[in-house]
Amino acid sequence: MLAHPAHHDIRIDRDRLWSRLTELGEIGAVHGPNGEQGCNRLALTDADRDGRDLVVARMRDLGLTVTIDSIGNVVATRAGTDSDGAPVMTGSHIDTVRTGGRFDGNLGVLAGLEVLESLEQHGVTTRRPIQVAVFTGEEGARFAPDMLGSLVYVGGLALEEALDAQAMDDGARLGDELVRIGYAGPTPCPAPPPFAFVELHIEQGPVLEEHGITIGVVTGVQGISWTEVTITGRSAHAGTTPMRMRRDPVVPAAKIAIEARRLAIEMAGAQVATVGRIEVFPNLINVVAQSVTFDLDLRNTDERLLQQAEAHMTAFVRTVCEQQDCSFDTRALARFEPVSFAAEMIERVERIAGALGNSTLRMPSGAGHDAQMLARVCPTSMIFVPSVNGLSHNIAEFTGPDDVAAGANVLLHTMLELADS
Amino acid sequence: MLAHPAHHDIRIDRDRLWSRLTELGEIGAVHGPNGEQGCNRLALTDADRDGRDLVVARMRDLGLTVTIDSIGNVVATRAGTDSDGAPVMTGSHIDTVRTGGRFDGNLGVLAGLEVLESLEQHGVTTRRPIQVAVFTGEEGARFAPDMLGSLVYVGGLALEEALDAQAMDDGARLGDELVRIGYAGPTPCPAPPPFAFVELHIEQGPVLEEHGITIGVVTGVQGISWTEVTITGRSAHAGTTPMRMRRDPVVPAAKIAIEARRLAIEMAGAQVATVGRIEVFPNLINVVAQSVTFDLDLRNTDERLLQQAEAHMTAFVRTVCEQQDCSFDTRALARFEPVSFAAEMIERVERIAGALGNSTLRMPSGAGHDAQMLARVCPTSMIFVPSVNGLSHNIAEFTGPDDVAAGANVLLHTMLELADS
Repeated sequence: MLAHPAHHDIRIDRDRLWSRLTELGEIGAVHGPNGEQGCNRLALTDADRDGRDLVVARMRDLGLTVTIDSIGNVVATRAGTDSDGAPVMTGSHIDTVRTGGRFDGNLGVLAGLEVLESLEQHGVTTRRPIQVAVFTGEEGARFAPDMLGSLVYVGGLALEEALDAQAMDDGARLGDELVRIGYAGPTPCPAPPPFAFVELHIEQGPVLEEHGITIGVVTGVQGISWTEVTITGRSAHAGTTPMRMRRDPVVPAAKIAIEARRLAIEMAGAQVATVGRIEVFPNLINVVAQSVTFDLDLRNTDERLLQQAEAHMTAFVRTVCEQQDCSFDTRALARFEPVSFAAEMIERVERIAGALGNSTLRMPSGAGHDAQMLARVCPTSMIFVPSVNGLSHNIAEFTGPDDVAAGANVLLHTMLELADS
Repeated sequence: MLAHPAHHDIRIDRDRLWSRLTELGEIGAVHGPNGEQGCNRLALTDADRDGRDLVVARMRDLGLTVTIDSIGNVVATRAGTDSDGAPVMTGSHIDTVRTGGRFDGNLGVLAGLEVLESLEQHGVTTRRPIQVAVFTGEEGARFAPDMLGSLVYVGGLALEEALDAQAMDDGARLGDELVRIGYAGPTPCPAPPPFAFVELHIEQGPVLEEHGITIGVVTGVQGISWTEVTITGRSAHAGTTPMRMRRDPVVPAAKIAIEARRLAIEMAGAQVATVGRIEVFPNLINVVAQSVTFDLDLRNTDERLLQQAEAHMTAFVRTVCEQQDCSFDTRALARFEPVSFAAEMIERVERIAGALGNSTLRMPSGAGHDAQMLARVCPTSMIFVPSVNGLSHNIAEFTGPDDVAAGANVLLHTMLELADS
């Protein structure tokens, strides 16, 4: 049931939200061969500036107070009746990967504004202020690390270090790009923590669709362990070198890819394991390889199990390299512990989604989100809506208008309840 | 024992041959960080022309009759007493791969000329003419196919088709490059078959060195089966896609690489199997791959076994792709049946090498050579000398002067015996 009987019947405007998504999706639009339309709006490019300008214009249209902080995060605030109350915040990002979709991030921002527009329309005033944030550079596709803006926002990365980040494409300095596009703002960052944070996002995976569920109640974010493994053997002529005299690094690399999959399937917990990048040197048909470099991506919702998986794979790498008389090197590329969202926030989203008539499923997030940074400083939760065919980071990324509206309505009532608590 | 007691004591001049190898090795020389000196003398480049000019000058110094044919093969002839006798031929190539060595091919040509210089020096006249050939474009590193000049020489490829071959580096037409470097000759090609053909070559593998053997008696050339396999699955987010919902083409590709190795080790015959090139798409750490393309290189000295290996791997590819719900495509890149050299030619090389005091080992050639083309039209054999560390197609390629001289002396007495038969 909904906690606020007075506002029980308020709903966001499905078509208005859809048209806002369509409008923002035109900026940096890229088109596929089958009529798909996606977005190329890499962080702090001209397209990102144009997207920000559009969103800020909409914020001002709604009469919101807009601040821009020193890392370029845009925060719109709708006042509450209690001027001392810490704000309830929602938000996400509008930067995309190079061939991204129109929903990833954009939905969270525009649904937040739609919530405020609906409250305005229905003359609802909340006790706490409500804020909608657009965080800088969530994708990590132009500037590392990903979730950069929200990480600086919560004090997890020093501002100066973030401003010195260099673009992967053209080497530009992040701080210079902020100035160039007019988003180096005066508001201090890190900021004081909000009262609570809720983010609506597309699932970016196939689980909700497979189960025919509308609302994913996100319990936390998987821990990530990324390791680059380089195995070195001995380059040799593929025709003249007998099998017993080879030190072929492709063989242990292949065994490791298979073992990672076996482990992920057999291990307890929501474990996934992937080898998605492989580089062979010299990579010629008739030469036994000198070396193979590949990335091992392990994820788990349970830190203890993630550590077990890492230890198992490290031992396995050692064993199969020894068998093939190869040497190996490993390099840690990223390591994040799992994030668990606050129990009362998870329960709130689940209850409200159900009360609004949605089917729900508790699930971890397999991808990183701004919400996991906010979870460091305040009670946090996320709402997922289905991704058609599980596609994301792809111009064919799609979530239908009914699912978008369902997610936004859960966001609306979650924010309402938090803003009056 | 040597068949020719009168010429029993004739030996080539070790230091002269070594200085000729050094001299030719200066043309197109490339240097490594540890003082290694290799060659970059791609077919029909300026460096190849300079190398040819040097070799032709040496041929003329020796008073040989030099012809250049329409595919650019250079043939030097020393007359015999029987003007109607078909010539005994030796030879090889002087083109190299981009980072090649100073011995591959070059040794066979210069040792052939050293044989003629030694006969001249000792006043030996043979019944049959003796020829030394420099075949065009053996490496296949600039123009496909490899062994192009000798293939046209024996009528295995139409001249016009060969002349139309396009350079992989700059797109130049082979016929135009022949004209440009002055090696589009008037002598018709294909040519009448020689009486016999013998080629001295470095092993390009580690077997002779491992066994401490000086002379490899080559029994034939392995058959080659090159297949490009493309496995297509479904690209997906590595964090959000549960293992059971994946169609990851890396998994079957890894299983195939391991199975190829297992098969090669367990199968009868001198089988080798290699996966040396792997391309993953999109090749990103956090994306389950869409597709994997790799090359499967199978070789065997026995055609029946090679066919068995092909059939086994084809069935295996099908099975593992089905298991992972992936589709696959295969493309034949090359297929050569094994070549068996004539028994009497093999025995002759073995007997002469032994009579000269060398340790010998019968072995197949794992790499392709001009000799395998000549084997189509006349009795043929090859003599191998050791490659240090088994290295070839590498600027560190090396064979010591004593091994070079040992091989050239076996060539000398084999040619002598054939030329008087």
